[in-house]
Amino acid sequence: MAWTVYLSGEIHTDWREEVARAAEGLDVTFTAPVTDHAASDDCGVAILGAEPNKFWHDHKGAKINAIRTRHAIEEADVVVVRFGEKYRQWNAAFDAGYAAALGKSLVILHNSDHAHALKEVDAAANAVCETPRQVAEILRYVLTGRLPG
Amino acid sequence: MAWTVYLSGEIHTDWREEVARAAEGLDVTFTAPVTDHAASDDCGVAILGAEPNKFWHDHKGAKINAIRTRHAIEEADVVVVRFGEKYRQWNAAFDAGYAAALGKSLVILHNSDHAHALKEVDAAANAVCETPRQVAEILRYVLTGRLPG
Amino acid sequence: MAWTVYLSGEIHTDWREEVARAAEGLDVTFTAPVTDHAASDDCGVAILGAEPNKFWHDHKGAKINAIRTRHAIEEADVVVVRFGEKYRQWNAAFDAGYAAALGKSLVILHNSDHAHALKEVDAAANAVCETPRQVAEILRYVLTGRLPG
Amino acid sequence: MAWTVYLSGEIHTDWREEVARAAEGLDVTFTAPVTDHAASDDCGVAILGAEPNKFWHDHKGAKINAIRTRHAIEEADVVVVRFGEKYRQWNAAFDAGYAAALGKSLVILHNSDHAHALKEVDAAANAVCETPRQVAEILRYVLTGRLPG
Amino acid sequence: MAWTVYLSGEIHTDWREEVARAAEGLDVTFTAPVTDHAASDDCGVAILGAEPNKFWHDHKGAKINAIRTRHAIEEADVVVVRFGEKYRQWNAAFDAGYAAALGKSLVILHNSDHAHALKEVDAAANAVCETPRQVAEILRYVLTGRLPG
Amino acid sequence: MAWTVYLSGEIHTDWREEVARAAEGLDVTFTAPVTDHAASDDCGVAILGAEPNKFWHDHKGAKINAIRTRHAIEEADVVVVRFGEKYRQWNAAFDAGYAAALGKSLVILHNSDHAHALKEVDAAANAVCETPRQVAEILRYVLTGRLPG
Amino acid sequence: MAWTVYLSGEIHTDWREEVARAAEGLDVTFTAPVTDHAASDDCGVAILGAEPNKFWHDHKGAKINAIRTRHAIEEADVVVVRFGEKYRQWNAAFDAGYAAALGKSLVILHNSDHAHALKEVDAAANAVCETPRQVAEILRYVLTGRLPG
Amino acid sequence: MAWTVYLSGEIHTDWREEVARAAEGLDVTFTAPVTDHAASDDCGVAILGAEPNKFWHDHKGAKINAIRTRHAIEEADVVVVRFGEKYRQWNAAFDAGYAAALGKSLVILHNSDHAHALKEVDAAANAVCETPRQVAEILRYVLTGRLPG
Repeated sequence: MAWTVYLSGEIHTDWREEVARAAEGLDVTFTAPVTDHAASDDCGVAILGAEPNKFWHDHKGAKINAIRTRHAIEEADVVVVRFGEKYRQWNAAFDAGYAAALGKSLVILHNSDHAHALKEVDAAANAVCETPRQVAEILRYVLTGRLPG
Repeated sequence: MAWTVYLSGEIHTDWREEVARAAEGLDVTFTAPVTDHAASDDCGVAILGAEPNKFWHDHKGAKINAIRTRHAIEEADVVVVRFGEKYRQWNAAFDAGYAAALGKSLVILHNSDHAHALKEVDAAANAVCETPRQVAEILRYVLTGRLPG
Repeated sequence: MAWTVYLSGEIHTDWREEVARAAEGLDVTFTAPVTDHAASDDCGVAILGAEPNKFWHDHKGAKINAIRTRHAIEEADVVVVRFGEKYRQWNAAFDAGYAAALGKSLVILHNSDHAHALKEVDAAANAVCETPRQVAEILRYVLTGRLPG
Repeated sequence: MAWTVYLSGEIHTDWREEVARAAEGLDVTFTAPVTDHAASDDCGVAILGAEPNKFWHDHKGAKINAIRTRHAIEEADVVVVRFGEKYRQWNAAFDAGYAAALGKSLVILHNSDHAHALKEVDAAANAVCETPRQVAEILRYVLTGRLPG
Repeated sequence: MAWTVYLSGEIHTDWREEVARAAEGLDVTFTAPVTDHAASDDCGVAILGAEPNKFWHDHKGAKINAIRTRHAIEEADVVVVRFGEKYRQWNAAFDAGYAAALGKSLVILHNSDHAHALKEVDAAANAVCETPRQVAEILRYVLTGRLPG
Repeated sequence: MAWTVYLSGEIHTDWREEVARAAEGLDVTFTAPVTDHAASDDCGVAILGAEPNKFWHDHKGAKINAIRTRHAIEEADVVVVRFGEKYRQWNAAFDAGYAAALGKSLVILHNSDHAHALKEVDAAANAVCETPRQVAEILRYVLTGRLPG
Repeated sequence: MAWTVYLSGEIHTDWREEVARAAEGLDVTFTAPVTDHAASDDCGVAILGAEPNKFWHDHKGAKINAIRTRHAIEEADVVVVRFGEKYRQWNAAFDAGYAAALGKSLVILHNSDHAHALKEVDAAANAVCETPRQVAEILRYVLTGRLPG
Repeated sequence: MAWTVYLSGEIHTDWREEVARAAEGLDVTFTAPVTDHAASDDCGVAILGAEPNKFWHDHKGAKINAIRTRHAIEEADVVVVRFGEKYRQWNAAFDAGYAAALGKSLVILHNSDHAHALKEVDAAANAVCETPRQVAEILRYVLTGRLPG
């Protein structure tokens, strides 16, 4: 049985590729949000017409992005949420809460200096990782029973 | 029929009292997380015993706090989430996501300078307010049909 | 056990009062949308600030009204939807669909000349009435077993 | 992962074909109600026997059509509802409410002159379009991240 | 905490009164279908108008009775279904199936000569009784821990 | 998309084959209970060991059969329930109730002389047929939009 | 808002009274299984008649006890499960799994020497306590925000 | 339609292979927890780093194993739980409770000397077996209608 794993959160590093490379050979389909920052910000107005007010500009885009991200969370067997170094990343925490309420298995990925600020998010998770490799190792173990090394 | 409204998020200003005062007379019960920051941080070790590792110190506390916050979200007719000026507030965004996935009516409260960073959270909301008074006015209208002024 | 009955739909005649009068003595709590047309149209901008674009003016109001109407449908034991003579009344049909998907008992109230256009809505209903008195008689029978006359 | 998109509502123009053409190449399966107006009206009596009373004629048909339409909504990843120029189209609004209650992503398609009458329906949607092309562009963006132009 | 117990099925003996008498003193609210056979058969046409076709006569009544019986099953903590000596009693078995699918605790009451024919229904039950007194004894034990004698 | 249709109820005539033949060419998978009466009655003791008490003999078998029938109902897009001329058939009515509570589309098949006794079951159905051919015609229409003749 | 707390598991020490005493003054209703071991073992045959086969003797009792315990878990805001020193206590672990699947907040209470054997159960819990006093302190903190000492 | 059967519980005998061999030819996919005891105990620290405290060592592992076991239960059509001769096996009982709450068909496998201690677990099951062969025979009967011998 193939697993579907949603890689949510940070879109400014190549952590998704790192996870995928380290998970090579596993029967896993990875999904992701749109990771083109500009497209993600502007999709609403690009398709549905310009808005002079930035709030509605953002709103139209966020609603369209939600079609993809909600679908990805609902279809996922595991939801991985990465918190990076930049930006507020409230959408990442929102995704984690959304996934938790649906009873999804959660894996959270962040550097240790965010641990205190993320304690409520981490407390809802099945695992808290510091590297993309650890995420892949968890997937490998969960699917095949094999441990690293 | 009394409504239950969960006031989630920021715990360092008196916005909950402002909402409650402005909502005086309404048939509303407000619930909240534990707003004593130190108690909230230390409840796990205070009750269940010290942990040398800060991660597990936090973890034990966050799991106990989750008993209260999950219950509050699940019992709520409306979930209000306040994003303040300080801290990462990932738990606030997590609560918003959790509430959204349960189909709760969401009201988000934040200053306009956070609007872009909160666009995904705002897009899941029934209303985005800038002041506690607006939150109370929404509750007054929703319960009684009366508008301000 | 008291029943909660949501009276959805048309807001320009006194059919809600007719139902309530004819249901006198029953252990029923009636709920309703905000029936002040102007307040219902303008609540969004009245509370959250003006919008130059009519679409967003409407949108802000409709989202706030949804807090009340979704809650009313979810809390209801029976949802009654009245289709009147004026306006498109798409929100009434939307409410009926929403209630049907939640498995609520539905009673639809309309004149016989709307029967063909409402056939899909009627097909989801437990009863199709032509008068408010019939709605009350159904409630009286369902709660007490007593038939009219 | 293929997406299933239900195209609900108006059956008297070729908007479904327009959406499909503009969405060419996407991994999408489109579903639809029976769009043969006469068959849809008469299926009940054609299969189960004539009814002298028009109400039951309609009722038998509507119940059979509901097997298809409820199934289509439940299986859909996205529900698109088109409101056209003719007829009351209460079944379209009913479908929108039904889909909203199931938590489906909703895209509403109508001319701007219906905006005020559809404000409650639009408020439940992820996107409000004026053209079939926009519907397809949303699907293309949601599935592939590509924007038009 | 008061329990709600729905007493479904046979309406031609006084078994409901027997259960209630034997359960005296317990914190239980009993609910029941309309047990006036004639009213139950004719409620549809009595309220909504005559039907020349017996099928629709029955249909209108059964749909109205379903408002009461579905509500009773959904609100019940325990559903008791009595199969008597007369009639087909398919509605009793339907209620049992409906309750089972909702995860309700089921108690079935019938004479031993129906045991083979009711084996699928009994297999879904928490208890199979032969007398109303046994039903009450189960309720007394479940609520208070006291056994008979 | 293939549909799964569960053919529940009577096991002593070849109505399932009639439906299947008349539905030839449709993208439908039919499922059924075990229709070997003796095997169905004795499966429990044949596998798990004899029971001197007929009640437990039946019970062990009914619980095993429930693995198949509950699964079939849960997986079905449409549940067809046939009431024949012989036996009590309470399990058929139980299946109908079970399917109704899960929100499945129901088609009921019986001769007109059972109509009054089955009025509660029929009231939960999308269609009431008298012949297997009608069942197939409904499926053909629902899947392809084609009407007979 | 009063909380309902189900105290599941061990029935041979007075830990329930200890929790209740230490929780004095809190707005909590405690529920429990029947804690009279003999009554719990024999309730089935005492009410429904003797069984020569011990398996069915046990089975009849366990099914009746399940009416109470499932109800208690479903109604609970928090489920506390105590593992004591004696017996296999598989029913305690079963209750914990049942509660976890329903998304209930779980508090597990056991001596540290059971920690390894209970690691899967503990991993599903919000808190793992060693004394009844700790259970009460968690409830006090969760309801009132007050910490011990 | 292929069935998915989760084989939970004891990991120190080859009962899973026995079931699989005896079920040869059936359209069944078997799933299982990680059955390498050492890997299962140590997966948490092997991937995420050592813990000096045995409780957290176990906790990290149990949370990761839960990703696999919860997924297996949720995806299963039938959950088989084997109680062996060694260890406490609380995780097996926990899995049974978890599966029961999700409405899964349950088959329990244990020697008769555990019958009294497992009565609550058995009472939630569709079948109680003493040998792996019986498990396979149930699956064969449920899928194909064929009985042994």
